[in-house]
Amino acid sequence: MSLGVWLVGGRGSVAVTSIVGALALRAGLAAPTGCVTELPDLRSPALPGFGDLVFGGHDPSPVPLTKRAEALADAGVVPASLVAAVHTELTAVDADIRPLPHVATQAATAGLIVADLVEFRERHDLDRVVVINVASTEPVPDDDPAHASLALLEDALRTERPVLPPSALYAYAALRAGCPYVDFTPSTGARLPALDELARRQRLPYAGRDGKTGETLLKSVLAPMFAQRHLDVRTWSGFNLLGGGDGANLADPAANSAKSASKQRVLQETLGQQPQGTVRIEYVEDIGNFKTAWDLVTFAGFLGTRMRLEFTWHGCDSALAAPLVLDLARLTAAAHAAGRSGPLTELAFFFKDPLGDVPHGLADQWRLLVDFAAGLDTAAAGPGPQAAGSDPEAARPDPEAARSGPEAGRSGPEAAGPGPAAAGSDSEATA
Amino acid sequence: MSLGVWLVGGRGSVAVTSIVGALALRAGLAAPTGCVTELPDLRSPALPGFGDLVFGGHDPSPVPLTKRAEALADAGVVPASLVAAVHTELTAVDADIRPLPHVATQAATAGLIVADLVEFRERHDLDRVVVINVASTEPVPDDDPAHASLALLEDALRTERPVLPPSALYAYAALRAGCPYVDFTPSTGARLPALDELARRQRLPYAGRDGKTGETLLKSVLAPMFAQRHLDVRTWSGFNLLGGGDGANLADPAANSAKSASKQRVLQETLGQQPQGTVRIEYVEDIGNFKTAWDLVTFAGFLGTRMRLEFTWHGCDSALAAPLVLDLARLTAAAHAAGRSGPLTELAFFFKDPLGDVPHGLADQWRLLVDFAAGLDTAAAGPGPQAAGSDPEAARPDPEAARSGPEAGRSGPEAAGPGPAAAGSDSEATA
Amino acid sequence: MSLGVWLVGGRGSVAVTSIVGALALRAGLAAPTGCVTELPDLRSPALPGFGDLVFGGHDPSPVPLTKRAEALADAGVVPASLVAAVHTELTAVDADIRPLPHVATQAATAGLIVADLVEFRERHDLDRVVVINVASTEPVPDDDPAHASLALLEDALRTERPVLPPSALYAYAALRAGCPYVDFTPSTGARLPALDELARRQRLPYAGRDGKTGETLLKSVLAPMFAQRHLDVRTWSGFNLLGGGDGANLADPAANSAKSASKQRVLQETLGQQPQGTVRIEYVEDIGNFKTAWDLVTFAGFLGTRMRLEFTWHGCDSALAAPLVLDLARLTAAAHAAGRSGPLTELAFFFKDPLGDVPHGLADQWRLLVDFAAGLDTAAAGPGPQAAGSDPEAARPDPEAARSGPEAGRSGPEAAGPGPAAAGSDSEATA
Amino acid sequence: MSLGVWLVGGRGSVAVTSIVGALALRAGLAAPTGCVTELPDLRSPALPGFGDLVFGGHDPSPVPLTKRAEALADAGVVPASLVAAVHTELTAVDADIRPLPHVATQAATAGLIVADLVEFRERHDLDRVVVINVASTEPVPDDDPAHASLALLEDALRTERPVLPPSALYAYAALRAGCPYVDFTPSTGARLPALDELARRQRLPYAGRDGKTGETLLKSVLAPMFAQRHLDVRTWSGFNLLGGGDGANLADPAANSAKSASKQRVLQETLGQQPQGTVRIEYVEDIGNFKTAWDLVTFAGFLGTRMRLEFTWHGCDSALAAPLVLDLARLTAAAHAAGRSGPLTELAFFFKDPLGDVPHGLADQWRLLVDFAAGLDTAAAGPGPQAAGSDPEAARPDPEAARSGPEAGRSGPEAAGPGPAAAGSDSEATA
Ligand SMILES: NC(=O)c1ccc[n+]([C@@H]2O[C@H](COP(=O)([O-])OP(=O)(O)OC[C@H]3O[C@@H](n4cnc5c(N)ncnc54)[C@H](O)[C@@H]3O)[C@@H](O)[C@H]2O)c1
Ligand SMILES: NC(=O)c1ccc[n+]([C@@H]2O[C@H](COP(=O)([O-])OP(=O)(O)OC[C@H]3O[C@@H](n4cnc5c(N)ncnc54)[C@H](O)[C@@H]3O)[C@@H](O)[C@H]2O)c1
Ligand SMILES: NC(=O)c1ccc[n+]([C@@H]2O[C@H](COP(=O)([O-])OP(=O)(O)OC[C@H]3O[C@@H](n4cnc5c(N)ncnc54)[C@H](O)[C@@H]3O)[C@@H](O)[C@H]2O)c1
Ligand SMILES: NC(=O)c1ccc[n+]([C@@H]2O[C@H](COP(=O)([O-])OP(=O)(O)OC[C@H]3O[C@@H](n4cnc5c(N)ncnc54)[C@H](O)[C@@H]3O)[C@@H](O)[C@H]2O)c1
Ligand code: NA
Ligand code: NA
Repeated sequence: MSLGVWLVGGRGSVAVTSIVGALALRAGLAAPTGCVTELPDLRSPALPGFGDLVFGGHDPSPVPLTKRAEALADAGVVPASLVAAVHTELTAVDADIRPLPHVATQAATAGLIVADLVEFRERHDLDRVVVINVASTEPVPDDDPAHASLALLEDALRTERPVLPPSALYAYAALRAGCPYVDFTPSTGARLPALDELARRQRLPYAGRDGKTGETLLKSVLAPMFAQRHLDVRTWSGFNLLGGGDGANLADPAANSAKSASKQRVLQETLGQQPQGTVRIEYVEDIGNFKTAWDLVTFAGFLGTRMRLEFTWHGCDSALAAPLVLDLARLTAAAHAAGRSGPLTELAFFFKDPLGDVPHGLADQWRLLVDFAAGLDTAAAGPGPQAAGSDPEAARPDPEAARSGPEAGRSGPEAAGPGPAAAGSDSEATA
Repeated sequence: MSLGVWLVGGRGSVAVTSIVGALALRAGLAAPTGCVTELPDLRSPALPGFGDLVFGGHDPSPVPLTKRAEALADAGVVPASLVAAVHTELTAVDADIRPLPHVATQAATAGLIVADLVEFRERHDLDRVVVINVASTEPVPDDDPAHASLALLEDALRTERPVLPPSALYAYAALRAGCPYVDFTPSTGARLPALDELARRQRLPYAGRDGKTGETLLKSVLAPMFAQRHLDVRTWSGFNLLGGGDGANLADPAANSAKSASKQRVLQETLGQQPQGTVRIEYVEDIGNFKTAWDLVTFAGFLGTRMRLEFTWHGCDSALAAPLVLDLARLTAAAHAAGRSGPLTELAFFFKDPLGDVPHGLADQWRLLVDFAAGLDTAAAGPGPQAAGSDPEAARPDPEAARSGPEAGRSGPEAAGPGPAAAGSDSEATA
Repeated sequence: MSLGVWLVGGRGSVAVTSIVGALALRAGLAAPTGCVTELPDLRSPALPGFGDLVFGGHDPSPVPLTKRAEALADAGVVPASLVAAVHTELTAVDADIRPLPHVATQAATAGLIVADLVEFRERHDLDRVVVINVASTEPVPDDDPAHASLALLEDALRTERPVLPPSALYAYAALRAGCPYVDFTPSTGARLPALDELARRQRLPYAGRDGKTGETLLKSVLAPMFAQRHLDVRTWSGFNLLGGGDGANLADPAANSAKSASKQRVLQETLGQQPQGTVRIEYVEDIGNFKTAWDLVTFAGFLGTRMRLEFTWHGCDSALAAPLVLDLARLTAAAHAAGRSGPLTELAFFFKDPLGDVPHGLADQWRLLVDFAAGLDTAAAGPGPQAAGSDPEAARPDPEAARSGPEAGRSGPEAAGPGPAAAGSDSEATA
Repeated sequence: MSLGVWLVGGRGSVAVTSIVGALALRAGLAAPTGCVTELPDLRSPALPGFGDLVFGGHDPSPVPLTKRAEALADAGVVPASLVAAVHTELTAVDADIRPLPHVATQAATAGLIVADLVEFRERHDLDRVVVINVASTEPVPDDDPAHASLALLEDALRTERPVLPPSALYAYAALRAGCPYVDFTPSTGARLPALDELARRQRLPYAGRDGKTGETLLKSVLAPMFAQRHLDVRTWSGFNLLGGGDGANLADPAANSAKSASKQRVLQETLGQQPQGTVRIEYVEDIGNFKTAWDLVTFAGFLGTRMRLEFTWHGCDSALAAPLVLDLARLTAAAHAAGRSGPLTELAFFFKDPLGDVPHGLADQWRLLVDFAAGLDTAAAGPGPQAAGSDPEAARPDPEAARSGPEAGRSGPEAAGPGPAAAGSDSEATA
């Protein structure tokens, strides 16, 4: 099964580490350490191979992938020798990382994104494309009544007012283009009633949100430990120091608060109460991609005796995230192939702020995931991969959008974007 | 169900904290924080109430329980106000903590222990007595061919040569007296083929070993986390600093090595390999009962990137252990009542070095435990609690041992201990 | 030499720990651990004895000292047995901790404070009184042109507008009353040109500010170490978690920022540059008086190699501060006796944000302090204690203020405070 | 002043980092971060420039310097680009790192070492050569009566019995050859009465021992801080995890105990008492050159309140050591040029186990060092560099040793070493 992986934020650290890693795996130059889909309990014929992955994406940055990869090598995130070894392949991918389309209405911009996705799928003759958001974290958006239903949303998209934050616009376009959508960031993504409605209508799965790679991962095993030992966690304070692009972006208080909120849920959910203390994220440029997180947990035990646990996590964020991005691409593609649609709640294992009413302890999430993977296996043994084909209209680009073309959109705001009719016709096609 | 809890090492920190805590719980002066059997998932009518527990034990130390409890209060292990509040009850328990019986042969000593247990059960009119070893850790004993079967063992016990380490002699006597046996220490306890044979013959359950209260508890959730994330743990080094009686005893290299070994298994079992690094235990008298453990874990992620986790655990050992001792008393008693015999492998959750071929990850152990507790419930709803009664011979003291009496044994080695016939008759009775 | 110690914030944690400690030292129930004036290098006949200290103060809180002391004992800050042992003496001190005087103009309020100080000095027949501010940290005040000279200040004090923050008003009143003034908090205190002018005119010494008891203390030895090793400190991030009254107050961002700023100077001064990173103070109520501070320092060494130091400081703030308060009382009194006036820059050792152009490394501050103490010795061997007497007018209470009396002031805003003449006459008396 | 730096252990990590660094400094490719002699307070015209350093040494290992340097680059100790940039120069140095001479008697071996040193000095036309021991740590040797005086020592050296450990034999040979000697390791080096006698007779300075680069460095600032605050340090426990060649060697308990002892003195000396707790060094191969040290300090403050400090030091040992090796070469050479002989106690700043009755606090050591450097300046301004020349005999190789030649020595134990007369004549020459 040939699989397109479309990375929103395709020139960022997580994206580039994922691409370099997949190329290295394909070339047999690296082991799949950190890829959970390569563990005996999850390995499955239903999953596309690393060699089957074809990368594309959107990113406003013009810096070539090879330059970004070299910067990551200098920072110790990926080995310099690997970057050198995959230089040619990386240059080839570069052409598939497109600038951001942007036209007058969000409906029109969505049309250009759809066109890019479809063109990518057709040019590479891919079975399907999974869209994964690894772009900078957005501020938490305001509520909007137009988020409540697909009909309201599509009306609003045709106005000049930007009704969706970028991550949700990508989710909208991905679903329109017949692509499953994964949000690896704390941004909104597909998590709106209108988009859930669209996903179900398109019979497409989606997953998210916010990859769980550090402090929250630890919380998801430590908090259940305290709970199962009936210890009374009194305070849990976290302090994250990070540089890098993600850190710089999180220095913006709005983005920071989106992220901090996403890191809190696990305690409430696993302890049954919210201990005192907060999570701080601090941007310290010089620290770069190797985040340091320090947590202090104080708890009371038998007869009230006070005790403490503190830990320091010194993790390379992109190195932790990248293999999970590859895992999510494989699992989401296989779920799509197996006919799954709507939120993939069984992927909670991967996320800080998982979809649905799911367990937050890692062990329970692991069992969900193992069962899910086993189910894919059975499904794969069944009628066969055809989900994308099952709704051919969804996969067909909007004709008008295609006609006006991405270049038009990119040539500037004056360019004639796809009018309301464009999105409308697509909407009708799938109705 | 009235339950006797016989603590070998009954004047030690763990024992005294357990007793003070149980008295405080009975008086409604404390919450059962740290008692896992009070969690919704485990609570069960099959379990005896805290108010049903009656304590006794053996300890060579002459220091009164009230003095020991005050010392623990000064050290911050238990609140001084609680110790004051249960002063009278504590004084009452004191009379049931007996000096160590010791006579010429181990068979005779066992007879005296049996007599003490039976006398305790009868005097307090208890449904059953669970024997729990919370005495100082013993050195690892040499292998002995007489450990291989009950017949060989009983022959050897009648000679002057001490064939069993004290913890195993206690297990032998407990089983002889019809009492389930729990080893909370890393000592040998019931973990010998001969004693397993005896337990099965007596239709008695046993459990162990080495209460999991700190560093190993953390390992049992962190190691599975690394494994499930397919991260390559390269080194895991631990450093434990502790004072207190247990620390002083572990300053002895032989006892220390028993303990360190017991802390290593979880990594091999959950990671599928043994990372580099060792566990050190250092006695630092001034640190007292509040142990500090520091662990450094280094691991490789995607493309070989090196990362680190370090944690410091600052736990009060006795406060962590005591509620588990109460849990184990309740669970083991209920298992006995439900007709269980042999090793209670489902109690792996509580132990560093659990019995049987069981999972070492805490989450899996938790599920085993929850299912086990649910099973007790059903059993309890069945024919009714009478396990002790089901094998009346086992519960009957050896007549000769009873006759020669504990005082005789304690008056010196010249005292006539129970002869071979005594143990023999008991053995026959249960055959 | 009998010495009055007037504590602004006399019912706070630092104050109460200081008082309990001094009473315990006087009674021979405790060792002077933490009192640097008891070290061989500083001990001096010029210093008043612990037994010579008499405590008084102001505090808006009505909670009796014995209640506050018991709360500190429950929190583990002071031993419960000590609190019980000094109960009578503590009750006696209680009467000398007065409510805050507050009348229409700040000049009038100052007059009432002066009256309280004089009355205290006379009633106890004290050689001198040192005023030490251990009240809650104030927000950073706005600049005011009236701070520039004593003349401008005294004009402004007579208006209804509050021109001085409380700490500075206390400094003003203390100096007016002939009392040396010490600021143990980050508040403004005597650190204004107008007050410096007053201190010099009154021939009174003053000291401050912000007692150095934790993270900054560590910085003052670690930063010089990095500097002397020519290591390139790149980032220094600090995270302080604390509860208690001080923590609650610092939860107010304005007070917090006063404190954080005061913690930063040492790096700039000792490293010659400001590394990246900030200091955070978080209020976590449940953590209480035992603050936990975590710092991460990253640095580059030879050929750019990156390295790290992290530390966790788990200190009891009041227990660290109290002995320094006693030290400062003794040293400032002896300096006054020796005829010193103006800022006591040699006391930099004690402060996060020391007065004057002084070294910030602890080792250099230590040498300054040792030399200073040696100088007192010589002075003490000289003409004898007379500083207070040398300016008898300064010590004389303002007659009008005394007349209107503290009760008047406290009975409400309508009470007639000391008029402009009052402060004026005092000012003239010292001219 | 052209300066030869002869590194015993010339192919080890510290040596190679020193050489690469000096070459990079000479080429202007690196800043002298970590070199304390480049700080404003120490910089001096009396010190040879980095460009004046010429390297040679002894090492039994045959691995070329370039290979060792590349391994260090792979491990992140030095930048790969620097290693590449100085490849040619490094290859040139390689020829001056000689295999170990070893012949039948230690006197003869010493003769071969002398010959190597003299040949190196003459061939490169050096003003002087400083010998620095950076070889693997030796086990603590047994006491030997022959260590008591030079006469006894020289008799014993002529027997077959090895009377000196290798480090001391190097010190002997260095001094014989007119070279100042520095011991950067915890080995014996020049620290024997017989060798002190020789150094004084030869008018040569020597320095040591055991470079202070991590945990002990921190102790030397933290312990004085506790002492100056009159805090009662109760326990200080240290745990060092390291890989690399030094770590592997320290896995040998004998070498380990030499090192651990050397790390303890600072506490006794600065605190005036030895707190409880020990220092452990653990070899963990995978951790490599980036040592992790964790220390826990517990202390009592005012009224006995218990508090704690813990720190983790994550330092690259060779990167910390190498600039100090360059500093020591420069300072010792300048001291020699200034006519200093005997132990350079003013260099205590650099060492864990400094020579002489010196302060152990870093701040005091720093002042000693600054004064020492200032003194060199003055001396340099004086009569001029001549120390080496002042004792021409000392610098002359032993004629017999020279005759038998290093090759002879290296060809095997049967080679004729320098007889008694050789050493004797040298001894006379210097008398
Ligand atoms: N461990 C992890 O690294 C981790 C874990 C969870 C979530 N995340 C999230 O993943 C995201 C990426 O992290 P990163 O470290 O790669 O950050 P980065 O700053 O290196 O990369 C972000 C990229 O997104 C691009 N971008 C910004 N706005 C965009 C838009 N509207 N459309 C498309 N591209 C856009 C930027 O140009 C940049 O190249 C962040 O949102 C981060 O919070 C990362
Ligand atoms: N968290 C924990 O505290 C924890 C966890 C796991 C295991 N354990 C084990 O529990 C045991 C008790 O720990 P502690 O802290 O109470 O130690 P402790 O030293 O305070 O108490 C041990 C008691 O055992 C008594 N004793 C010694 N030999 C005996 C014997 N042969 N028979 C009967 N009593 C004997 C001693 O007199 C003492 O009173 C130790 O073996 C320890 O390793 C404790
Ligand atoms: N290690 C330390 O504890 C330490 C170190 C440096 C500075 N400080 C400073 O010392 C001060 C006291 O700390 P604490 O822990 O005792 O706090 P606390 O909250 O326990 O006590 C402060 C007291 O000040 C009183 N107060 C408030 N406003 C007042 C006013 N205008 N006049 C007189 N009294 C007033 C309060 O009623 C309270 O009793 C704080 O400013 C703190 O920042 C403490
Ligand atoms: N921060 C530091 O790195 C530091 C600090 C203090 C002391 N030291 C000491 O410096 C020494 C070197 O450390 P390293 O990390 O470079 O170790 P290393 O193992 O990398 O190098 C030691 C070298 O010495 C050589 N050697 C062994 N025996 C020898 C002998 N008899 N004569 C000559 N050479 C011999 C070895 O072949 C090796 O090349 C060790 O003794 C270490 O304890 C290092
Ligand atoms: Na820590
Ligand atoms: Na740490």
